[in-house]
Amino acid sequence: MVQSSKSGRAPLYLEDLEVGQRTTTESHELDEAQIIVFAEQFDPQVFHLDPEAAKQTFFGGLAASGWHTAAITMKLLVQSGLPIAGGVIGAGGEVSWPRPTRPGDVLTVESEVLEIRPSRSHPDRGMAIVRSETKNQHGDVLQIMTAKLVVPRRT
Amino acid sequence: MVQSSKSGRAPLYLEDLEVGQRTTTESHELDEAQIIVFAEQFDPQVFHLDPEAAKQTFFGGLAASGWHTAAITMKLLVQSGLPIAGGVIGAGGEVSWPRPTRPGDVLTVESEVLEIRPSRSHPDRGMAIVRSETKNQHGDVLQIMTAKLVVPRRT
Repeated sequence: MVQSSKSGRAPLYLEDLEVGQRTTTESHELDEAQIIVFAEQFDPQVFHLDPEAAKQTFFGGLAASGWHTAAITMKLLVQSGLPIAGGVIGAGGEVSWPRPTRPGDVLTVESEVLEIRPSRSHPDRGMAIVRSETKNQHGDVLQIMTAKLVVPRRT
Repeated sequence: MVQSSKSGRAPLYLEDLEVGQRTTTESHELDEAQIIVFAEQFDPQVFHLDPEAAKQTFFGGLAASGWHTAAITMKLLVQSGLPIAGGVIGAGGEVSWPRPTRPGDVLTVESEVLEIRPSRSHPDRGMAIVRSETKNQHGDVLQIMTAKLVVPRRT
């Protein structure tokens, strides 16, 4: 269960995390084709599928599914976020989408460790609460996620 | 912005929703190949990619990305959940994954309307709080999502 961070950074255990610790991921450029392919499979609604028809909807134009933004966020966190030992494993959390993700948006994720909780029942692990903001190239916040991550302790 | 429910049911406005209202979607059968294809693109970690190597991880075997479970849940809700007028549009919510989604799981989503809030600032819409449990064929709860949905009012 070794975390092999793509960037070659050492895996982080619960003892290595600090409240206030921040990281920024690499970026992902989203285009119309990616938005439509994801929507066809997982969120087949007109505002995610058809740029022309989307103009007449709540979104006023093509927008990515929120779950697409969440999935890209996960990819960025796995590839270049905190290199947590054993992997990035979320038990759950809160997610919100303050504004739509659009074709042409270049997404980057900025994370901050909010809280660190050793487990009472499992001495080999703990929980880290991490807040991640997914932003586009203009600095607009597209998604805010506060996740509970399972983090192993050093043995 | 007409909701064309695949099942041909009439679109629902805020006035049509009731606290306690329940729906159950159709189902989706997940296999190893789907889990791996999603993970390669959005959550490339060994426990989502490699059935053999996954045995040595936290999950003890291949598991779907939580975001894959979330995306399939969305697909089921769009196709056969509440046929909300204007579409299923989430502003955000809470999500948790009490247990892993596995190859061979057949997912169904059971939803309940928890709360209905007309908007003060936008008289043409409101918010519905909907709790959705994603279960497998054994009744195991794989995901719990409490979502804030944007719902239009009748004009």
